[in-house]
Amino acid sequence: MLSVASRKQFWNSQKLCMNESAFIITVSGWRQCYKTACPHSHSPFYFSSTLQSESSFKCFFLPCSRCNSAWITAVMLRNSVFSCFVFYGVLLVLKMYVIAVITGQIRLRKKAFANPEDALRHGGLQYHREDPYVERCRRAHINDMENILPFLFLGAIYSMTGPSLWVARLHFLVFFICRVLHSVAYLLALQAPTRSVAYTLAQIPCVSMAVQILMAVKSYA
Amino acid sequence: MLSVASRKQFWNSQKLCMNESAFIITVSGWRQCYKTACPHSHSPFYFSSTLQSESSFKCFFLPCSRCNSAWITAVMLRNSVFSCFVFYGVLLVLKMYVIAVITGQIRLRKKAFANPEDALRHGGLQYHREDPYVERCRRAHINDMENILPFLFLGAIYSMTGPSLWVARLHFLVFFICRVLHSVAYLLALQAPTRSVAYTLAQIPCVSMAVQILMAVKSYA
Amino acid sequence: MLSVASRKQFWNSQKLCMNESAFIITVSGWRQCYKTACPHSHSPFYFSSTLQSESSFKCFFLPCSRCNSAWITAVMLRNSVFSCFVFYGVLLVLKMYVIAVITGQIRLRKKAFANPEDALRHGGLQYHREDPYVERCRRAHINDMENILPFLFLGAIYSMTGPSLWVARLHFLVFFICRVLHSVAYLLALQAPTRSVAYTLAQIPCVSMAVQILMAVKSYA
Repeated sequence: MLSVASRKQFWNSQKLCMNESAFIITVSGWRQCYKTACPHSHSPFYFSSTLQSESSFKCFFLPCSRCNSAWITAVMLRNSVFSCFVFYGVLLVLKMYVIAVITGQIRLRKKAFANPEDALRHGGLQYHREDPYVERCRRAHINDMENILPFLFLGAIYSMTGPSLWVARLHFLVFFICRVLHSVAYLLALQAPTRSVAYTLAQIPCVSMAVQILMAVKSYA
Repeated sequence: MLSVASRKQFWNSQKLCMNESAFIITVSGWRQCYKTACPHSHSPFYFSSTLQSESSFKCFFLPCSRCNSAWITAVMLRNSVFSCFVFYGVLLVLKMYVIAVITGQIRLRKKAFANPEDALRHGGLQYHREDPYVERCRRAHINDMENILPFLFLGAIYSMTGPSLWVARLHFLVFFICRVLHSVAYLLALQAPTRSVAYTLAQIPCVSMAVQILMAVKSYA
Repeated sequence: MLSVASRKQFWNSQKLCMNESAFIITVSGWRQCYKTACPHSHSPFYFSSTLQSESSFKCFFLPCSRCNSAWITAVMLRNSVFSCFVFYGVLLVLKMYVIAVITGQIRLRKKAFANPEDALRHGGLQYHREDPYVERCRRAHINDMENILPFLFLGAIYSMTGPSLWVARLHFLVFFICRVLHSVAYLLALQAPTRSVAYTLAQIPCVSMAVQILMAVKSYA
């Protein structure tokens, strides 16, 4: 630990930076009080603290609270692997929503409702019944949940382990294409083993990502 | 690339900063060895490396490994859109847990168990049976999974695309209120179409977030 | 706001840093054009802008776009709480995949298929039927989704609220062990209440994390 004097020297050398930068240096317990305007004029004063003891010295570069969000946006979305993952992840979520809409439409067309209150509204309690095709849609949706939701976790973490862009995109694309094929095969009842093959191929990038993540963090177990 | 000499000059100009800041500058392969105390006294020495070649020059500002966590906390939780999302997201997770507890209580009260081992413990195998109200709770829970879990993904990413706080809060609040209403309508079997309307309204912010995210990352597809 | 002159002074004082650091300072609308090589030689020029008006002054430290990913990796994976969470989270996802594989194998061995096209491929439509043990596997899998997927959300956010490592690891380990025990108890139909106890114990760290997160972000509601 340096002396208080050398800290003040450091602090003075940073003053210009404080006035001009969106990054503040918080020094909890600094004896002198600095009040500086945020260059984006978001808040009139965003720094003020007093040095009290040697032990309370804390020093971080931080964006001011209103620039913080823009800074995270810049850092995350300029991560091309992460953005690539987000693109396919969101498309797969929309695909799940489409299956939910299809299920609802089939229920209405085939008059097969899971709840008596819905059946009453659409013709009577005799329509509170199961339908094989509605059940097929349900199975397709639940299988999506079993596989796409874990992918959303694995893909996000995998993006942070620093893979090369084309390897990562290959993982995401294989999963995306196979899951779309899986849904088509399920809803159109394509001949076996189309659906099972699509399912199995989609699991390969998932297991690959899981193994690579475990390699990266195994020392923190 | 500048010469090794100009790098050393840069390095020397940063020395004071190194001694005082929680941020270290890692220069892999630096010939000279610097050992500096972390100002938070977390580890006696946190920098030591030697310059070996031109190509290995890497330079990042990084918090020391023990301050790293506090820094992420400061950056993430000062992102007010993200924190707002987290608040409603966690409440919705707790709501799902409540439905699970209700399902368990109804199973005990109505003596309708999904597994023979549970039925045996609570009176006999004749209670290994289905009950319409238990099935209703199950459907409410599965519908929550189909919608709340994708929201947890969409909301987190959406928070990083830099939306204005009040627009983002509107998205989260509409989803939150509609999903609570959906659960109430499901468990109390409210007259149709209360539940369907709540479901549909809750999907609007989700689709809106999905579209805004796709706009933000479409160039990385 | 300082004058344009003092900004130029600030800018000149940062020039050495710009030439050597992977961090650039973007000043949208700067009148003078600076072109500097990224020290990692990823792109020949990564800074170029012109000052146009007082109001457009924006200033961030940002890694160059190709170093950005490596920087996020360094920051996230050096967060030991987050990496510990990721380790157990990924293991639990793999555990869910194992249950899916077991379900598939049981379907083949017991010849009980959910879809007629699968039954046709494996002997005939008479095998399009339900089997009690397959249904047990399905329930184990759905219970995993109800509990492990919300854990993946809660654990990630909890890691960013700055808990101490050993408290956080305790949360993750209790959840991990109880969920593995839950799956074993479900698939082997262990005597009640083994499975229920494992389920309940696993919920304790989840509710604890949820409450701690809500405490941390309640002011952003």
